[in-house]
Amino acid sequence: MSEAPSGWNIQRLTRGEGWHRRFVFGSYRETRAFLDGLASLAEELGYHPQNVNFATNYVNVTLEVGEEEREREQAAQFAQRLGALAVMAAERRGEG
Amino acid sequence: MSEAPSGWNIQRLTRGEGWHRRFVFGSYRETRAFLDGLASLAEELGYHPQNVNFATNYVNVTLEVGEEEREREQAAQFAQRLGALAVMAAERRGEG
Repeated sequence: MSEAPSGWNIQRLTRGEGWHRRFVFGSYRETRAFLDGLASLAEELGYHPQNVNFATNYVNVTLEVGEEEREREQAAQFAQRLGALAVMAAERRGEG
Repeated sequence: MSEAPSGWNIQRLTRGEGWHRRFVFGSYRETRAFLDGLASLAEELGYHPQNVNFATNYVNVTLEVGEEEREREQAAQFAQRLGALAVMAAERRGEG
């Protein structure tokens, strides 16, 4: 069974789970880069978070994860790649 | 004194006000166009919402509006132009 990558908080629901993660950034520039990446990732994978909540320096992401293995795999892939995007967005800090 | 454009719900705070508006779209494509426009508008005006909350077919926007006239004018301008962006995003419905 696919698990949420580390860093995600899991909430048991009546059916399936809610996966939550808060990403904190040092600037709006980083936040914006992350949000752009999130949108591109959603289009690429055809998978959308249940909810995204953001301000200038944070982004809270909630995934609704059903009980079927295929749904869990999709969510796990999205979550894992989103984590990589957050690292990339933060690494831009040193640039121009 | 600058007022919130129509369509915004106003909540009195200890200092100033919170302006809230929910934008509902017919597709993720429209929602995405609106979010891209919101980000560009924030950069253009140097004004950022206190919070943005979205899923595939809605975007909730909260503005924190202080008591100074200049702050209220900035918020009113942002709110007014955001309303225009929502109309433009929805009008894309008929395209491609």
